[in-house]
Amino acid sequence: MKRSDVVGGAVDWTAQARELDMADPLAEFAERFVAADPDVIYLNGNSLGRLPLGAVARLREVVEQEWGRGLVGSWSRWITQPQMVGDLVGRLVGAAQGQVLVCDSTSVNLYKLASAALAARPGRPVLLTDAGNFPTDRYVLESVARAAGGRLVLLDTIDDVSAAVDEQVAVVSLSLVSYLTGALADMRELTQVSHAAGALVLWDLSHAVGAVSVELDALDVDLAVGCTYKYLNAGPGSPAFLYVRRALQAGLQQPIWGWFGQRDQFAMGAHYDPAPDLRRFLAGSPDVLGLAAVAVGAEMVLEAGIDRVQEKGRRLGDFLITLADAWLAPLGFGLASPRAATQRGMHVSLRHPSARPIAQAVIERGRVIVDFRMPDLIRFGLSPLTTSFGDVCAALESVRDVVASGMDEATPVGLTADR
Amino acid sequence: MKRSDVVGGAVDWTAQARELDMADPLAEFAERFVAADPDVIYLNGNSLGRLPLGAVARLREVVEQEWGRGLVGSWSRWITQPQMVGDLVGRLVGAAQGQVLVCDSTSVNLYKLASAALAARPGRPVLLTDAGNFPTDRYVLESVARAAGGRLVLLDTIDDVSAAVDEQVAVVSLSLVSYLTGALADMRELTQVSHAAGALVLWDLSHAVGAVSVELDALDVDLAVGCTYKYLNAGPGSPAFLYVRRALQAGLQQPIWGWFGQRDQFAMGAHYDPAPDLRRFLAGSPDVLGLAAVAVGAEMVLEAGIDRVQEKGRRLGDFLITLADAWLAPLGFGLASPRAATQRGMHVSLRHPSARPIAQAVIERGRVIVDFRMPDLIRFGLSPLTTSFGDVCAALESVRDVVASGMDEATPVGLTADR
Repeated sequence: MKRSDVVGGAVDWTAQARELDMADPLAEFAERFVAADPDVIYLNGNSLGRLPLGAVARLREVVEQEWGRGLVGSWSRWITQPQMVGDLVGRLVGAAQGQVLVCDSTSVNLYKLASAALAARPGRPVLLTDAGNFPTDRYVLESVARAAGGRLVLLDTIDDVSAAVDEQVAVVSLSLVSYLTGALADMRELTQVSHAAGALVLWDLSHAVGAVSVELDALDVDLAVGCTYKYLNAGPGSPAFLYVRRALQAGLQQPIWGWFGQRDQFAMGAHYDPAPDLRRFLAGSPDVLGLAAVAVGAEMVLEAGIDRVQEKGRRLGDFLITLADAWLAPLGFGLASPRAATQRGMHVSLRHPSARPIAQAVIERGRVIVDFRMPDLIRFGLSPLTTSFGDVCAALESVRDVVASGMDEATPVGLTADR
Repeated sequence: MKRSDVVGGAVDWTAQARELDMADPLAEFAERFVAADPDVIYLNGNSLGRLPLGAVARLREVVEQEWGRGLVGSWSRWITQPQMVGDLVGRLVGAAQGQVLVCDSTSVNLYKLASAALAARPGRPVLLTDAGNFPTDRYVLESVARAAGGRLVLLDTIDDVSAAVDEQVAVVSLSLVSYLTGALADMRELTQVSHAAGALVLWDLSHAVGAVSVELDALDVDLAVGCTYKYLNAGPGSPAFLYVRRALQAGLQQPIWGWFGQRDQFAMGAHYDPAPDLRRFLAGSPDVLGLAAVAVGAEMVLEAGIDRVQEKGRRLGDFLITLADAWLAPLGFGLASPRAATQRGMHVSLRHPSARPIAQAVIERGRVIVDFRMPDLIRFGLSPLTTSFGDVCAALESVRDVVASGMDEATPVGLTADR
């Protein structure tokens, strides 16, 4: 902090933010997205990333040229897109070619991989996860366990994995970044401890891909899934991805035997004969429009460089926590995320007993788009390609003002109704 | 046929086609699609339907406004789209509200419904289909049977169903329109005979929806699936649909327990508790862009009227068969589709020993987009909203000329290499 930033004894955080933005090597990326409403500060890229201008152009091309003009002939290009775009995503998560597919939803991909992994570990009936894992992960794992006559063990926290993984466990399935707190799990340690017990690991990278540096190959990860509509900015309901380590591919059989997984797809043979490689993890026709948007999003992060993206995200988080300490702690907010940047993903969660009405008021009156998560969390999503330090400063100022003004009123608007 | 259409003793089919187009009440719909290359006649809408101008506009709106500007706030609109668009599709297949969802791929939906149906018929281990069913149907049914310790019985033809369905059969799963021959199955008869034996029926409507009049509720059908990229013109890899008869919904449990099927999705509860209604057949996040295109396609067919669409498709098929008899039978072509229009869907298949190289030459030299299907079929797709009688006449003329000229040459280009 420079001396000039201290005004009348108080720090001038707005000036600080301006300096941080001036020094930000990724600042120019924000201009490559469709501008949001200038009244609004968008801190929800951890739910739905913003729209890249490149995606607007690419989607028009795919729709109007490839579909509109090229028609069925364009399938010669489209048919390999799950693999081609998968390889792009793979470069962001440390996966060599031929191990990542973009297809289906995260839920369906998790189902495919967890089912395949459980079947590959006969005599081991247990799937292991933690109670803080994202709901669809827990529910899908529950369905996989039940269908196979196994059982899902829900640990209280991810810290209990080491003690719980044993020769009964077929698969350890965890999220790399907690959707609640933004805590970053120790992928190296948890993968090793799972492997030492003979279990396979299946990581959900939804809150990590495109924002956190991940090394799937180097850490010997078996399986992974994740969505593309957060930090890859691929749009609402864009197709998800899956990773299967090359050495495991031929030995794993996923349960949904669609024709895109068939060895010779257009021979239309009588029986299912899965492709020997990654393609066997496909099922039905790929979402061509969604794939185009994933490619644009992945290319932008590759251009920015995942290490620089992660570094900026950590600085944004540090700055947010500093401001929260200064402005929001006195108003009853606590930090729910790890304080150390190396232990966080790209969102910071604050805890408050009135989190739900506060989040509502912050969105409606403060024009800061955050989100509420049960029971008492407000999440601030920091998307390194689109969020500035100025955004963080203005957002926390707005939260402070909304809460402070609301607390002065007898019946503060939006602060009491538990919506 | 009018006297004026007979020129020098031969019928003037071009004039005939012109008259049929003049009298076509749906002729104006073709102008509401992006124009194809004027050199090309597109008879492959049974693989990928053409691009509606309305879809171009709607996709731009969803991308640029709803996603680009509305961002995460648009989820309040998007979240019910699988049901809302499902109801639109439902109107095309005789389904009252609350029974059709647009989600996932046909393969994944078939997996969900066939698994649920098999589990609902304990003591009946058999899934029944025919060897002519579409590959993904056969393969997915095979996987469902195998996972549950049951078995898939592949009948030689759909005509064998009545004799084969017995107290061992849990589910009879058939395609309403054969992808090979365009033959239309007798949904009423086959549903009744299956029910009489205590089996559930699961119809694949991929080659029917938007082109053939279907009455799911009236015929007491249990389950159905289908794609939307053929006669609903919703684009490459657009989301598929599923139908579950209302009375069955609460009693069927599909295997992929994603969070979109959870009763109270955002309570993020510890265990899966499926929604009591149709929503339990959802899994992951819906493909929002794809849903928008499905809505446009379904609305166009609703506007045209499914009965008028079917009527025009039958006339197109009759006209094609008349021309094939006149021009192509002498060149060795046979009719693989039913001759009676009431027994056909919307494509006509011709058989020829050299079908593969002929299809290739017709596409490359004749500029008529048809497709080849193993072992000896050429399919001519007739999309009532976009195909004219003039298209049919010009296409068959082109096929005739390509084959006739190819057969005169010593080594006819494209006609000998079995690519």
